[in-house]
Amino acid sequence: MKKPWAGRFAGKTSKIAEAFTESISFDKRLWRYDIEGSIAHAMMLGRQGIIPHKDSAKIITGLKSIAKGIEAGKFKFSEELEDIHMNIEAALVKKTGAAGKKLHTARSRNDQVALDLRLYLRDETKGIISLIKNLQKTILSMAEKHSSVIMPGYTHLQRAQPVLLSHYLLAYIEMLQRDRNRFEDALKRINILPLGSCALSGTTLPIDRAYTAKLLGFEGISENSMDAVSDRDFAIEFLADAAILIMHLSRLAEELILWSTEEFSFIELPDAFTTGSSIMPQKKNPDVAELIRGKTGRVYGNLLSLLTIMKGLPLSYNRDMQEDKVPVFDTTDTVKACLTVLAQMLPEIKFNKEKMHGAAEKAYSTATDIAEYLAKKRIPFREAHEVTGKIVLYCIKNKKELKGLSIDEFKKFSSAIDKDIYSRIRAGDSIKAKTSRGGTAPSEVKKQIKRLKQVIK
Amino acid sequence: MKKPWAGRFAGKTSKIAEAFTESISFDKRLWRYDIEGSIAHAMMLGRQGIIPHKDSAKIITGLKSIAKGIEAGKFKFSEELEDIHMNIEAALVKKTGAAGKKLHTARSRNDQVALDLRLYLRDETKGIISLIKNLQKTILSMAEKHSSVIMPGYTHLQRAQPVLLSHYLLAYIEMLQRDRNRFEDALKRINILPLGSCALSGTTLPIDRAYTAKLLGFEGISENSMDAVSDRDFAIEFLADAAILIMHLSRLAEELILWSTEEFSFIELPDAFTTGSSIMPQKKNPDVAELIRGKTGRVYGNLLSLLTIMKGLPLSYNRDMQEDKVPVFDTTDTVKACLTVLAQMLPEIKFNKEKMHGAAEKAYSTATDIAEYLAKKRIPFREAHEVTGKIVLYCIKNKKELKGLSIDEFKKFSSAIDKDIYSRIRAGDSIKAKTSRGGTAPSEVKKQIKRLKQVIK
Amino acid sequence: MKKPWAGRFAGKTSKIAEAFTESISFDKRLWRYDIEGSIAHAMMLGRQGIIPHKDSAKIITGLKSIAKGIEAGKFKFSEELEDIHMNIEAALVKKTGAAGKKLHTARSRNDQVALDLRLYLRDETKGIISLIKNLQKTILSMAEKHSSVIMPGYTHLQRAQPVLLSHYLLAYIEMLQRDRNRFEDALKRINILPLGSCALSGTTLPIDRAYTAKLLGFEGISENSMDAVSDRDFAIEFLADAAILIMHLSRLAEELILWSTEEFSFIELPDAFTTGSSIMPQKKNPDVAELIRGKTGRVYGNLLSLLTIMKGLPLSYNRDMQEDKVPVFDTTDTVKACLTVLAQMLPEIKFNKEKMHGAAEKAYSTATDIAEYLAKKRIPFREAHEVTGKIVLYCIKNKKELKGLSIDEFKKFSSAIDKDIYSRIRAGDSIKAKTSRGGTAPSEVKKQIKRLKQVIK
Amino acid sequence: MKKPWAGRFAGKTSKIAEAFTESISFDKRLWRYDIEGSIAHAMMLGRQGIIPHKDSAKIITGLKSIAKGIEAGKFKFSEELEDIHMNIEAALVKKTGAAGKKLHTARSRNDQVALDLRLYLRDETKGIISLIKNLQKTILSMAEKHSSVIMPGYTHLQRAQPVLLSHYLLAYIEMLQRDRNRFEDALKRINILPLGSCALSGTTLPIDRAYTAKLLGFEGISENSMDAVSDRDFAIEFLADAAILIMHLSRLAEELILWSTEEFSFIELPDAFTTGSSIMPQKKNPDVAELIRGKTGRVYGNLLSLLTIMKGLPLSYNRDMQEDKVPVFDTTDTVKACLTVLAQMLPEIKFNKEKMHGAAEKAYSTATDIAEYLAKKRIPFREAHEVTGKIVLYCIKNKKELKGLSIDEFKKFSSAIDKDIYSRIRAGDSIKAKTSRGGTAPSEVKKQIKRLKQVIK
Repeated sequence: MKKPWAGRFAGKTSKIAEAFTESISFDKRLWRYDIEGSIAHAMMLGRQGIIPHKDSAKIITGLKSIAKGIEAGKFKFSEELEDIHMNIEAALVKKTGAAGKKLHTARSRNDQVALDLRLYLRDETKGIISLIKNLQKTILSMAEKHSSVIMPGYTHLQRAQPVLLSHYLLAYIEMLQRDRNRFEDALKRINILPLGSCALSGTTLPIDRAYTAKLLGFEGISENSMDAVSDRDFAIEFLADAAILIMHLSRLAEELILWSTEEFSFIELPDAFTTGSSIMPQKKNPDVAELIRGKTGRVYGNLLSLLTIMKGLPLSYNRDMQEDKVPVFDTTDTVKACLTVLAQMLPEIKFNKEKMHGAAEKAYSTATDIAEYLAKKRIPFREAHEVTGKIVLYCIKNKKELKGLSIDEFKKFSSAIDKDIYSRIRAGDSIKAKTSRGGTAPSEVKKQIKRLKQVIK
Repeated sequence: MKKPWAGRFAGKTSKIAEAFTESISFDKRLWRYDIEGSIAHAMMLGRQGIIPHKDSAKIITGLKSIAKGIEAGKFKFSEELEDIHMNIEAALVKKTGAAGKKLHTARSRNDQVALDLRLYLRDETKGIISLIKNLQKTILSMAEKHSSVIMPGYTHLQRAQPVLLSHYLLAYIEMLQRDRNRFEDALKRINILPLGSCALSGTTLPIDRAYTAKLLGFEGISENSMDAVSDRDFAIEFLADAAILIMHLSRLAEELILWSTEEFSFIELPDAFTTGSSIMPQKKNPDVAELIRGKTGRVYGNLLSLLTIMKGLPLSYNRDMQEDKVPVFDTTDTVKACLTVLAQMLPEIKFNKEKMHGAAEKAYSTATDIAEYLAKKRIPFREAHEVTGKIVLYCIKNKKELKGLSIDEFKKFSSAIDKDIYSRIRAGDSIKAKTSRGGTAPSEVKKQIKRLKQVIK
Repeated sequence: MKKPWAGRFAGKTSKIAEAFTESISFDKRLWRYDIEGSIAHAMMLGRQGIIPHKDSAKIITGLKSIAKGIEAGKFKFSEELEDIHMNIEAALVKKTGAAGKKLHTARSRNDQVALDLRLYLRDETKGIISLIKNLQKTILSMAEKHSSVIMPGYTHLQRAQPVLLSHYLLAYIEMLQRDRNRFEDALKRINILPLGSCALSGTTLPIDRAYTAKLLGFEGISENSMDAVSDRDFAIEFLADAAILIMHLSRLAEELILWSTEEFSFIELPDAFTTGSSIMPQKKNPDVAELIRGKTGRVYGNLLSLLTIMKGLPLSYNRDMQEDKVPVFDTTDTVKACLTVLAQMLPEIKFNKEKMHGAAEKAYSTATDIAEYLAKKRIPFREAHEVTGKIVLYCIKNKKELKGLSIDEFKKFSSAIDKDIYSRIRAGDSIKAKTSRGGTAPSEVKKQIKRLKQVIK
Repeated sequence: MKKPWAGRFAGKTSKIAEAFTESISFDKRLWRYDIEGSIAHAMMLGRQGIIPHKDSAKIITGLKSIAKGIEAGKFKFSEELEDIHMNIEAALVKKTGAAGKKLHTARSRNDQVALDLRLYLRDETKGIISLIKNLQKTILSMAEKHSSVIMPGYTHLQRAQPVLLSHYLLAYIEMLQRDRNRFEDALKRINILPLGSCALSGTTLPIDRAYTAKLLGFEGISENSMDAVSDRDFAIEFLADAAILIMHLSRLAEELILWSTEEFSFIELPDAFTTGSSIMPQKKNPDVAELIRGKTGRVYGNLLSLLTIMKGLPLSYNRDMQEDKVPVFDTTDTVKACLTVLAQMLPEIKFNKEKMHGAAEKAYSTATDIAEYLAKKRIPFREAHEVTGKIVLYCIKNKKELKGLSIDEFKKFSSAIDKDIYSRIRAGDSIKAKTSRGGTAPSEVKKQIKRLKQVIK
């Protein structure tokens, strides 16, 4: 087969080189966007009189029919034709003859592939935003449902202070909200039309880029043709946002894994989302959570791949940039799968309320409340902190819980302690009193739930 | 020295552990922000009656005097006191006694360090945005100054089409503009008050976070205390933005290195920004550009570091997060140094206009113009492309340039070619005709310069 | 379909979870190794009397027949059966009934998958070593063929000193030799039998691991069952070695790209390994070299992925580790493709000897030779260096080459310079005199070629 | 101050460029190696008659005196003199006049810096190997000391099968042994003399590289001068080995963190290696372990940095490579600190044997033993596995432990079960029976301890 670019070539392409340089095996996934972009381009060419109206119409009909063929699984992709752009163009020429040969007027593969990737990422980014929203809603329902569950909050994975399970869950909604905002910010930079930059310097033909942008729903138009074909920022930014997102999911996954250990026993994962062992009949493994945690490596790797690819590349288009697709595709697939499976699995989790509450009552997790109790009584916080530390040490040595101390024992440490101390050191009391903005008090958590319902709509 | 947190501890800290866990050797750089935050916190505590006004005043005076001491280089930082927070608090207690011991009321190091890092990154991000703007202005002046210089535009590092040097320079302004926008978007998420989240669950004391936020100029307040002390998204986002920025600079650096080779000879770098060889007396090396390219590795590494650190961490604060500072500090230093040195060096570069223009005239770089010429004459672009390819092949075989072909030679390839072809195939003519939006035509470049003057103000 | 591990499970696996956790879509590539391992395992089980000989024989026949089926493309892989291990086992049970159900005795998927991956990587590593050797031989032939070609050696991409093209080529053979050695070292750690570690703690059955190891050609046996199923060092080490290897290839690729620019024009790439442009008919792009450079990002990303996955994982097997396969497979494919295409392309490159030699004669590239000439005349090297620097500056100002200076001009800079200077400052003379070990003198290069012929056999 | 390389330069170096390009602020750490290398070089120059013996002697005396000055903290490092090499040479010239100016004969900073870094990394690698050995010995003592402690082995962080604590500890010795082997392999490639490669092409002077190599204790000599100054493989390989090492440590750290939670309560960390909270008086945090886990990010980042730096660099030396030092230095510091602190902390850990053993008895962790029991009775393993799964399910539903089942209950699931089952399902019995090579049986663990004592000597 003759290559469309082979006018000046005397020798043939080596089969090995052909297999090495082809991208059709992975960029065929872009077919829908390639056709969408070509239709808009053809409409513009016709409208501007760059090609006859008749040819424009033929092209559009031809492309639509190719789209149907691909959708129906009837299209034969050829490695010899290198990429999705040339596969489709060749099919179009076959269908429409001379008309099809006019489609590539005022266009280059350089701006075409940038267009396709932007259209793809615009769709995917919107899809991911929507999946994030969905996951947020799922978590929000859980927070509402489990509004009375008390659990230990941890720092350094040591029980630190009691919190509401709802409060803990809302923390993830906050993280996801930042993820959404980041993807929305990225979308502003993704949603820019590069087409019309041609190879790198624009064209001598009277194209109307604003019209093409309008047809394709772009909010902006690239303003420098060299930049437009050299730029993969939008893809890197997307990958960075995805890396932060999956980092968040990896944290949640880690906690699901911890909480479903025998030792924690805070939750039971649904059978439908766990697997067994091929040798140990008793096992029930948190595979989904583990895989989400593991897939973090994949997304980080993809981000680093594209950053590495773009390092030190001179302007404008270089073939290295063909390597942008695999990490982008792999990331969209991975992130979407993780968001989807989590939203399905989370509501099925059974929380072991007694266990969680019990854990929150222990480990002196309301010691800070004693320190703040003393601070309210005008004891400098540092002293209050030290006094409380000594109380804890006394408890450990004597194997007592804080609420198990008599008032006399308390008073040995500070005369400022009175009987009202007992209404401060139960987990539930501690939580109720944490009414500072963003704190874990039920009243505050309720406010946050109300606010978040608006935010994540 | 007694640790402020040592109430419950019986044993002493190992010296090796102390050296291993200390952060004062690097986080002392945060002193200004730590004090700024503590002053605001003390004002709030006083105003809310959580501590007496008198103590609040003493604390503020004390902190200001400590700030002066540090500024004057008189403050002694102690490794035993672990970090900047405890170093300053210990000094304050020394100065103010019981008053100082009240500063840490309704606060934890967990929210304090998050505050300090946010204040630091807010300043640094603004500083970087301003340095980007400065570099953009520098490049814009160059684009205006060299508005008539013609050079070859490259794809695959092969001469592709002639462009204006100005057009090429504007491509970098576009990239930098996206960098600015990304940093500005990041700033929205950096500029959030975490203080008042305390250890992880808020406080029982009647703090007023909105007041503290106002004092410190924050635009938002974190809404979930667990999230607030667990969150390092803002730092990762900053690092990702920095990675994209330095990737841009690495591309510019690559081209400066290429252009200053004997082979390209497009530019001469100023003596003041190059160095010589310890063995080869004739050398003049583009060290600054090479180092910028090399420092890309450093910033990428920093981004990966923090992503790795945060992977799979359970909520809320974990000591791993102390490792956030070195990559962040190293990145701000690196990025600022690169932006600064580039803005100094670029205007001193001498462009070898003849060489650049000469290169643009060769290598058949206006072949696309012939193809578009034919397309305008209704020859389907694919055919036009092939015809032109054959013309080029003919030129190569006969060692001719396009403009060296006679009209008869042209007509052998296509009867559609007329004498007006000669006004299309000189680099200058080609450029003039590329009037599509974002194209390299002088008229379009002028428009872009005008627009950018507004944008980067 | 009933899961083989589902004895204790009441609920069914969710379809979404099944799709999320399956690995058959990518680990089916391990089928050959899975069967090879199972056959050895069955032989051992039979020999040890753990299962009846008859059953062992049935299993082996069954597995061989399955292998044939897969080879012939007739085997149906099922996502429901999760992975390659269970797909094959299920087929075996179908074929052999109760016998097949005995295969998994004294084995777990944990040690089985470790076995398969080691067998796979052993083969691939050997294959890569062989491809490296092949590439070394190719380059060595080129070095012999082009033994008289002189070119400029560069530092900082500035012409520094003349060297032989052969000498330059040998540098890459050295790099590749280190790559080989690293892969050979890795092989020592890959080629270890993990089977028999079972889930994590060994087995109560009287297995003979040494026999299995012998059957499978392993040189060592893992000595700790928990480590054996937790360990992916061998894969990370492989990925790190691959990262260094492709970094080397990226450097070669960079130089091929540079050298095939119009500006350098040192080489012409064969038509068979370049491609054209869809819009610019005159272009001939070094795509293969660019893609090799770009694929560096992919391999770096893969290394980082697996490092990230393994970070902080508690012993022993965790499902995260299933994510090891995609980066490993992608790396073996990538590295092998790059080595193969390079070995094909390199011998087809045409070197433009005149251009290379001409470049070496210019840019004062023998200035160091003057400095060493003076040093031999007992002028302290630093002074000699400075004197030469002044000569170069004089040449630049007066637009002369070194060999164009008269002896009087030379003597103005140092009376120590005599007429014999003229036999030192031509590129060829300079090269001939660099006879230090590892230097670029033809005599030394010849020695190295002879040595390398032995080394890379 | 005049730059030693400034012969041909007319303009002065910009202060900003000077600050940007200097490396003395970090490479001064190499002073010892720089001087060691220079002394060997001077000896060789004298011996070969390249410089007079007298001068050689003067240089050596001068360098030794400079070394003393640096050691005593009296040496003034100057940023203007860029790097450690020029700082020391300038001081030498000051001390010895013309003699000092002869030191740089037949040498370039390109081979000098490669030499220094190799000498540095040789020392550091040996130091790290020795620290690994030390940590192995520490763990081995622990394994011997706690030889009777039973704990649950985990897969998927679910209790899987009982193992000996000793067995678990030996797993880490295996990992560390591979680390040692990898560093030893790296040492073969580090311990190569690059000096004598000069700028990139060797020298015309009659140097004796073998003699220099002997003086400096190198085991090999680089065989290609261009490769020698371009090569940073040895540093990347070191970083990759360090990344795998710290990954191992991060896994141990993770488990220390888990085990010191209230929930696990398997261990108590020594007060001397934990810290408290500034707000929560009861906290005792596993900071050392958390920081080790966190520092993994730093080492991964360093590896990626250097890989990124070297990607696509043309031969030979480029200034980018100056950026190799910070990641290398940071990694040696980090890894050594982690190994040291761990070796100190581990022996101080108190194991809660009852808790560990108790956990091992629960969660049906000997279910596999039942399956293997049945397999021995010729029930196909897959059926045995399923039967056991049903037994477990029955236990869960009826809230029983395996050993709490009556023989009749057992027999309901399989008639093959006899009373001897009770001697298989206690954790201790299970462990004792796992006598396969590398298994957890005390007899096997004892063998391994004996073997390891030889191995890690």
